Amino acid sequence: MSITRINSGPRMSQCVVHGDTIYTAGQVADDRDADVAGQTSQILAKLDALLAEAGSDKSKILSATIWMSDISAFNEMNGVWDAWVDTDNPPARACVESKLALPAFKVEIGIIAAK
Amino acid sequence: MSITRINSGPRMSQCVVHGDTIYTAGQVADDRDADVAGQTSQILAKLDALLAEAGSDKSKILSATIWMSDISAFNEMNGVWDAWVDTDNPPARACVESKLALPAFKVEIGIIAAK
Amino acid sequence: MSITRINSGPRMSQCVVHGDTIYTAGQVADDRDADVAGQTSQILAKLDALLAEAGSDKSKILSATIWMSDISAFNEMNGVWDAWVDTDNPPARACVESKLALPAFKVEIGIIAAK
Repeated sequence: MSITRINSGPRMSQCVVHGDTIYTAGQVADDRDADVAGQTSQILAKLDALLAEAGSDKSKILSATIWMSDISAFNEMNGVWDAWVDTDNPPARACVESKLALPAFKVEIGIIAAK
Repeated sequence: MSITRINSGPRMSQCVVHGDTIYTAGQVADDRDADVAGQTSQILAKLDALLAEAGSDKSKILSATIWMSDISAFNEMNGVWDAWVDTDNPPARACVESKLALPAFKVEIGIIAAK
Repeated sequence: MSITRINSGPRMSQCVVHGDTIYTAGQVADDRDADVAGQTSQILAKLDALLAEAGSDKSKILSATIWMSDISAFNEMNGVWDAWVDTDNPPARACVESKLALPAFKVEIGIIAAK
């Protein structure tokens, strides 16, 4: 099966497509001053863009992993997630607390999707 | 490849099947008052049920991710895991500490399995 | 699709191959006294060996998850990662902080790769 890498830098690719399966890097917000809802919105927009580049969209997400630096903001993140997710085609999901690469990052989301 | 979603709610599906590959959501215990061993047992029973619904079973688990809110209870979780896992067909596994969505949740397990 | 398990013990397999997709367990260092850079080197060598056993190599890694017990050593880990990764074929990646199974473990890495 073919492997296609999207938005690759020397350290990682933001997205890798293997046959019919798409893996994204953990996405974080560009505006690190945004609150949990704002960072979540930015991340989901980046995932939409990556999926589009890979020839897919959010209706085909299989699995999502969400890391939050402070799980007590779970509801704030979910408010944005729930408004964004394709409710006819919701992915499997896990959401746990982990500190992220920079203290300013409050949310990170990586997904596996189908083409 | 076809995508089938099992036990879907507006936020997530508990299980998504893509061709021959099955992704589950992170499973947590229903009885949040149970200790680590008890919560682990409940979670593994839920995974058994999801795999059955997806047309698979624990002999076909490829990979498991285990999050524990307190990794010092690692051995207590493993006691239940070791008695449950198909020792002829054990999956790849990672187990790390992360606080979970509710303080009462001590263990969360998500898996990728084959059909 | 066939399932092949590599380096299996009663609790887990270090690697599981499903069709064209390879899942590794979270790898940790054998020398637990090593610093972050040393542990990262050992882990990446173990991943090279597992990929070789599975009939693959680091140019075909699709996704990597890196857990660090202290994310403040992010740059130290990345120094070793950046020197090791196939810069022509970098994987998707997420790196987050989680305490690991033993306090001495500073880094754990699990990957999904193509055959």
